[in-house]
Amino acid sequence: MNLPQGYQYSAIYAGIRKIDQDDLALIVSDRPAAAAAVFTSNRVKAAPVVIAQKNLRASRGRVRAILANAGNANCATRTGERVALTSIRGAAKALGCAPSEILPASTGVIGVELDARLIVNALPALVAGLDPTRFEDAARAILTTDTTEKMAFAKVHGAAIAGMTKGSGMIQPRMATTLGFVVTDAEIPRAALHTALRRAVARSYNRLSVDGDTSTNDMVAVLANGAAGIRPRARAFEDALAEVLESLARQIARDGEGARKLVTIDVEGAANEAAAEKIARAIANSPLVKTAIAGSDPNWGRILSAAGNAGVNFEPRRVDIDFQGVRVCRAGLAAEFSEDDLKRRLDERECTIRFSIRGAARGRARFWTCDFTEEYIRINASYRT
Amino acid sequence: MNLPQGYQYSAIYAGIRKIDQDDLALIVSDRPAAAAAVFTSNRVKAAPVVIAQKNLRASRGRVRAILANAGNANCATRTGERVALTSIRGAAKALGCAPSEILPASTGVIGVELDARLIVNALPALVAGLDPTRFEDAARAILTTDTTEKMAFAKVHGAAIAGMTKGSGMIQPRMATTLGFVVTDAEIPRAALHTALRRAVARSYNRLSVDGDTSTNDMVAVLANGAAGIRPRARAFEDALAEVLESLARQIARDGEGARKLVTIDVEGAANEAAAEKIARAIANSPLVKTAIAGSDPNWGRILSAAGNAGVNFEPRRVDIDFQGVRVCRAGLAAEFSEDDLKRRLDERECTIRFSIRGAARGRARFWTCDFTEEYIRINASYRT
Repeated sequence: MNLPQGYQYSAIYAGIRKIDQDDLALIVSDRPAAAAAVFTSNRVKAAPVVIAQKNLRASRGRVRAILANAGNANCATRTGERVALTSIRGAAKALGCAPSEILPASTGVIGVELDARLIVNALPALVAGLDPTRFEDAARAILTTDTTEKMAFAKVHGAAIAGMTKGSGMIQPRMATTLGFVVTDAEIPRAALHTALRRAVARSYNRLSVDGDTSTNDMVAVLANGAAGIRPRARAFEDALAEVLESLARQIARDGEGARKLVTIDVEGAANEAAAEKIARAIANSPLVKTAIAGSDPNWGRILSAAGNAGVNFEPRRVDIDFQGVRVCRAGLAAEFSEDDLKRRLDERECTIRFSIRGAARGRARFWTCDFTEEYIRINASYRT
Repeated sequence: MNLPQGYQYSAIYAGIRKIDQDDLALIVSDRPAAAAAVFTSNRVKAAPVVIAQKNLRASRGRVRAILANAGNANCATRTGERVALTSIRGAAKALGCAPSEILPASTGVIGVELDARLIVNALPALVAGLDPTRFEDAARAILTTDTTEKMAFAKVHGAAIAGMTKGSGMIQPRMATTLGFVVTDAEIPRAALHTALRRAVARSYNRLSVDGDTSTNDMVAVLANGAAGIRPRARAFEDALAEVLESLARQIARDGEGARKLVTIDVEGAANEAAAEKIARAIANSPLVKTAIAGSDPNWGRILSAAGNAGVNFEPRRVDIDFQGVRVCRAGLAAEFSEDDLKRRLDERECTIRFSIRGAARGRARFWTCDFTEEYIRINASYRT
């Protein structure tokens, strides 16, 4: 792990989730950090999303801490905003900063009241546990149905970037996905930070789908506290940030609920990038494509049909499709390939689909998803109870 | 069964599907019938869809027969159009009509060449088997992963309407779905028939989703041969046709791949019908909503979140949600209800969801889908091979 300077982390079990496993995480910068965040585009927004958006405006993008809980989304709750405000006020008092300098975040079940006392009571021990090395503890405390913590690291001109995320189901980010927190000790002006985040999210989190459901609580935030005294060029920082976010997005796809395979979809030769992304998303969201991959079945007809539903114009007779690097469809028709051989290769943990349209157009997009297994159904038929 | 006059039906095993089960169906009107049809909006269209569209134009909507096979979609195939043309030419010769008076239709796997000789060789026995009572045999021959044949009947002013359909997976009609054939002995002018079909499909097949995948082969056709000598009022005929198509659409949802429950979604109080339909479709296509129903889990938060992704503006605090007639969400918040009692009622074979937005707006839509079970995954992880 390559942690940036000037940050501390903590995690604790506050009793929000039913099982005794840390469910409250705190990330603190030792000085006010420039902050940028993107949030869900769902029309139904959880209380912490609303408060975090307000706080970013009120503090003009200066943030000291992120307080995140798992086990309850604090969404569609009577007391939602009050609970979020009470929590960050308590944390602000303990940290000696303004409440507007804290971003709240929540993930878990929707529509169940969250008891603010659980959080307030846990705050003293949470703050006491702050330590520069406890990044992974915090990363673990924000998980829900995830099977593993998800972290990514990068260096840019000697400054460090470290990111954590969670997410396994209800994943189809349109702005961000579930929760992602990135800290860096680089010095980045607030406006540049926001631009870099927006661009990096467009090519990472916004190219990810597990099940096509966009959550009510999605949020990706980045803090830059400048503790390294290094100010990288904007483009270099954006690339490093994108590298971290892309790694996190891939980890989410790989750990999709019930998933056994990470699926990478490359679309090429569309009229433009937006058209390529639409085709890739249509393929990624097709249950028939995803179940075929679960069954190691090179059923490219489903890929072609899914692409045909993307709302994008293309000539089927110009389409080539590769599965695991093997051409399965040439010019819209079945190609010759060894089915047994390809089925074996589809048993691997990673699967690649290339959908390429012949011609002069240069629109391309990469998208990540996972296969669709019976385990997804088992997990989600009984998540709440 | 209440069959219209002047039609005969036949079915035979032509060897297209691997198992010995009828896979070729023929519907013949003893006189040219007025015909109307709607087809898939998928950018990738199967050869029989293309030919059927051409034939309807060439014959000016006069049709003598429908020739449909299961086991092979004849889509994304090198010889697709030739195979469809050879098949209907053979049928036309045997029936003594023009090839353009026959509508071809196919359903099954995509991307595998269909051998026209299988169909041509089966035609003599198929035609010899024509009988006015074999409606159900034809309905059975067009099935693929369906577990049961799907038929519906209605009377209008003494004339009869009879419909058959197939469909279980790759179901989210945008124009029609998979295959649906309706015959009537009413006398309906071609233009009125087309209008009636378009309107009836809008409130039946286009309100149906099993898995959100729109097929390459979708087609619903209606033939009106006038044999009853009855000319119903346009509105009465449209209502009777809609009744038949709605029954067929419900039968498809009930028999969705792996489905145990038929789900009916009613949205009310949206700005207009289109907005209501978008919300209903978003709920119907959410894997999280559908797995919750499979698990008899009254997880209304997923319904609210899915609606929030519909791309429609609404105020979450004005939303009431009922499950099986039980209010589970009032004004966007959890309502008091007996969870045990509701879980038991969710074990029933039919499930209703009512999503209603308080206020003056009158936009409403009804939509059908099914629950999402592990069996869907099992069926589709190995359909092709």
